[in-house]
Amino acid sequence: MRRKIYVDGPLPGVRVPFTEVTLGSSPGPVGDEPNAPVRLYDTSGPGGDPAVGLPAVRRGWILERGDVEVVEGRVPTARDDGRGAGRDGSRRPDPFPAAPRTVLRASSGRPVTQLHYARQGVVTPEMAFVAVREGMDPEVVRAEVAAGRAIIPANVNHPESEPMVIGRHFLTKVNANIGNSAVTSSVAEEVEKLAWATRFGADTVMDLSTGPAIHTTREWIVRNSPVPIGTVPIYQALEKVDGRAQDLTWEVYRDTVVEQAEQGVDYMTVHAGVLLRYVPMTAERVTGIVSRGGSIMAAWCLAHHEENFLYANFDELCEIFAAYDVAFSLGDGLRPGSIADANDEAQFSELRTLGELTQRAWAYGVQVMVEGPGHVPLDKVVENVTLQQDVCHGAPFYTLGPLTTDVAPGYDHITSAIGAAVIAMAGTAMLCYVTPKEHLGLPDRDDVRAGMVAYKIAAHAADVAKGHPGAQAWDDALSKARFEFRWEDQFDLALDPETARAYHDETLPAEPAKTAHFCSMCGPKFCSMRISQDVRRMAADDPVALGLRSKAAEFRDAGSQVYQEAAQPV
Amino acid sequence: MRRKIYVDGPLPGVRVPFTEVTLGSSPGPVGDEPNAPVRLYDTSGPGGDPAVGLPAVRRGWILERGDVEVVEGRVPTARDDGRGAGRDGSRRPDPFPAAPRTVLRASSGRPVTQLHYARQGVVTPEMAFVAVREGMDPEVVRAEVAAGRAIIPANVNHPESEPMVIGRHFLTKVNANIGNSAVTSSVAEEVEKLAWATRFGADTVMDLSTGPAIHTTREWIVRNSPVPIGTVPIYQALEKVDGRAQDLTWEVYRDTVVEQAEQGVDYMTVHAGVLLRYVPMTAERVTGIVSRGGSIMAAWCLAHHEENFLYANFDELCEIFAAYDVAFSLGDGLRPGSIADANDEAQFSELRTLGELTQRAWAYGVQVMVEGPGHVPLDKVVENVTLQQDVCHGAPFYTLGPLTTDVAPGYDHITSAIGAAVIAMAGTAMLCYVTPKEHLGLPDRDDVRAGMVAYKIAAHAADVAKGHPGAQAWDDALSKARFEFRWEDQFDLALDPETARAYHDETLPAEPAKTAHFCSMCGPKFCSMRISQDVRRMAADDPVALGLRSKAAEFRDAGSQVYQEAAQPV
Repeated sequence: MRRKIYVDGPLPGVRVPFTEVTLGSSPGPVGDEPNAPVRLYDTSGPGGDPAVGLPAVRRGWILERGDVEVVEGRVPTARDDGRGAGRDGSRRPDPFPAAPRTVLRASSGRPVTQLHYARQGVVTPEMAFVAVREGMDPEVVRAEVAAGRAIIPANVNHPESEPMVIGRHFLTKVNANIGNSAVTSSVAEEVEKLAWATRFGADTVMDLSTGPAIHTTREWIVRNSPVPIGTVPIYQALEKVDGRAQDLTWEVYRDTVVEQAEQGVDYMTVHAGVLLRYVPMTAERVTGIVSRGGSIMAAWCLAHHEENFLYANFDELCEIFAAYDVAFSLGDGLRPGSIADANDEAQFSELRTLGELTQRAWAYGVQVMVEGPGHVPLDKVVENVTLQQDVCHGAPFYTLGPLTTDVAPGYDHITSAIGAAVIAMAGTAMLCYVTPKEHLGLPDRDDVRAGMVAYKIAAHAADVAKGHPGAQAWDDALSKARFEFRWEDQFDLALDPETARAYHDETLPAEPAKTAHFCSMCGPKFCSMRISQDVRRMAADDPVALGLRSKAAEFRDAGSQVYQEAAQPV
Repeated sequence: MRRKIYVDGPLPGVRVPFTEVTLGSSPGPVGDEPNAPVRLYDTSGPGGDPAVGLPAVRRGWILERGDVEVVEGRVPTARDDGRGAGRDGSRRPDPFPAAPRTVLRASSGRPVTQLHYARQGVVTPEMAFVAVREGMDPEVVRAEVAAGRAIIPANVNHPESEPMVIGRHFLTKVNANIGNSAVTSSVAEEVEKLAWATRFGADTVMDLSTGPAIHTTREWIVRNSPVPIGTVPIYQALEKVDGRAQDLTWEVYRDTVVEQAEQGVDYMTVHAGVLLRYVPMTAERVTGIVSRGGSIMAAWCLAHHEENFLYANFDELCEIFAAYDVAFSLGDGLRPGSIADANDEAQFSELRTLGELTQRAWAYGVQVMVEGPGHVPLDKVVENVTLQQDVCHGAPFYTLGPLTTDVAPGYDHITSAIGAAVIAMAGTAMLCYVTPKEHLGLPDRDDVRAGMVAYKIAAHAADVAKGHPGAQAWDDALSKARFEFRWEDQFDLALDPETARAYHDETLPAEPAKTAHFCSMCGPKFCSMRISQDVRRMAADDPVALGLRSKAAEFRDAGSQVYQEAAQPV
């Protein structure tokens, strides 16, 4: 049976959610032996009415630090919802209905970031929370955050989020991208995708909306998200200038960042490494520039022939991020869009610049992770994380896939889960999922599920391979249940219990089949699992039995037949 | 456009099938530039009426070698179709309707195997055929087969099969398992699964039937298969002794092998490495023995307390295999069934015995490949192939997955595609697919498709990573089509064109969208791909343009806007 439980942490008010799976007993030589329940990491949040939003679990912790003040906040403008809303005849979506929120901001010149506190030697409630979640010592969490090797995205204006940590010494995390486009999708659909993403284990969610109602959509998402929310502010900034990249200015961008920081966005992708001099390096590529943010900045650089304004104004950006605890996700605007372009001069030049920016952000006390590719053949995958860890001074790596072949549109959750598992094993801290619709369309709810499951597999396979404490216990519990024909336990422990159960029931739908000591692969009359149970029983009865010829007759006379009738008790 | 073509080989009668994808032109600076067609490896066979079977393309080559004679063959018995057929009230399936075939067998003491001829320095038509298929020199094929590093499964009684090669220096191959069980499935379903498997790229197919009509089902499959067929004869032998492992004898097994060799089975899994002394090594495992063949032999060994009769009679088995050119697939009966059991003493002890058996088979001129796991965490995957290549003297490795985590029943095509790509990159020659139904039920047609696509991805990702000649050309052609918005070319080049097209059409179904220069991810008004085309155009116009401030104004005035109206020609 699966149920949600909360475990009290080492600091007051820290209650950490887990999915607890209680298990049936195992048959032992002297009666049934109980199996300890298995606790699984749980990102699904407390749930509730989307029009109300989630409880603000972190508000008390934030206010108690005494480093923020309520500010009036930015004055909303008509352009915040972009060009589409209400203008093209489409219905403007309802605003998020709850009472106006207070906006928080640093009250002094000091950063309010988790990095800042970690450096001061303070274990925040957020750090205590993730320590319980990860089964780690809180001091380890603090030390990793202080060193910049891990981040806890935790905007003071997103108190609804349950803290999580991104770093190579912790469980590998998975981000799910959602968001509308000019062509398709509604606010309700996006909120539903958010719920499905966190139900299937999304550790963070990025709202990549580029369509109408961009501000309103984000408000609904942030208020309902139990996980940190990331964005790419340049998308909204571009909407504010009618989509003309050349008309973008630092002022429009800064205004957008403040708007989103006040809403509670926890991390923002910033393509500050797309330098003017790197753009020509992409001219001979098979697929040029495929990052939206990267291409916007490249277009701006070309139009003005000036240096990327995100790079030029990076210090001011750091000051803003420090005042809300927004983390940088330094974007890889020149990531390869085909395996032919992997690991090239453009990509690695930008990466080195991201390393420089990492240190500049750290100087402001701002948390940083660094984004990575993309499309990379399997033999070039590991080099990406090795180089990133080197040139970015150990800042967490956050990679999209990578996709290991370009030939399977419709299945890029699989082409990329392969690369994702390999790069995570080599040290990537968070994986950005890819759905089956990649390159073809906007993912729907089912695509979110397919992408999430593929990526939870990749992340967990990497955690097991890395020997992360406790990771393999989950596998072992499920395998033991499988070996002992505890079907319900096997389903409950599955990454996607509903699908596992449904597939089983397709061939053997009857309830008795779920307690049967066989499956439809071999049928009721023959089962290899049962034979090896016989082997084990013999060994348990008499450890030297297997070496004694005299036991052969006994085995023959007793339970040795490979087939037993289904009706017979087993 | 996709179409099937045939390419003439260097020997008479050698006509090699390919899927040829013809492509649209690319826009160039001075008009359209044609793109060369792409030829893809094609396993789908000539098709036709299942009741007739496929043409016997290899018959002439086989007879011309003058090393076989028509023999009367084994006399069929009522038990050949197992216990189920006609006894449990189910309808006995129709026998394969074509006229009785002649059965071929070696006419002298000499082996009739591809290995034998390769050692003599002879390039057979089969070798010439695979050389064209692989784009390799026929002499390379011959040398690899002669060295035992590659096999061409080619039973003289399966003249319908189009030759293919399994070896680490060739394209990574994929096997699909089909076959009925006591619980489910019919002959017609199995023939349909065969067709779907080869349509989606199965290089070989194993018929693992354990249910009723086992002989008749196999006859339908072999006669309709354009790819080599593998089996596990112990399954049928067990049926002949009413499923009582202890009643198995060498005589029943030998009779079954002859029966299947006469039908045309190209390779057989033989669990001759499950030695009596290894069985106790599995007692402490989390999941004991999970291989059906392995557990049957373990049960037999325990019941009789004698050495595995397959090991004891291995030389006679080699003589039979040599007389039909049946290849060994030396089974890993003690493969791990959970990641906890990976790379343990039982597994590697058996592997060393398989190395000994490899050399014994080679002494008889019999082709050999060796089977591998199973469930293996990602950090232990490469050791499997490294050790196998060492102790089995370079014989091709044929691995099931491996699955890199146990926690995702319902998605084991993905958990295992990850391990499959990694192990193939490290030298596995053929991958045995895993379907979403693994551990839960028997795969249906759609599961066959899902498993095949996942494994073709893994195999191709490995081929690209290994730098296999020509492998990446497919990726590059697709990526170029993607970059240039040649949607139809992108679909035609896709591993699964139907799915790619369907996913695209879900959001943008109209025909114009397939010629549109955008996709539903960004919508018609913004597209990163188009921006980088602008970058390239500028570079092409004037290679130093990107370094000149004067070009900025020109870019602004001309095509610099990121947005263009959808109606506007682009």
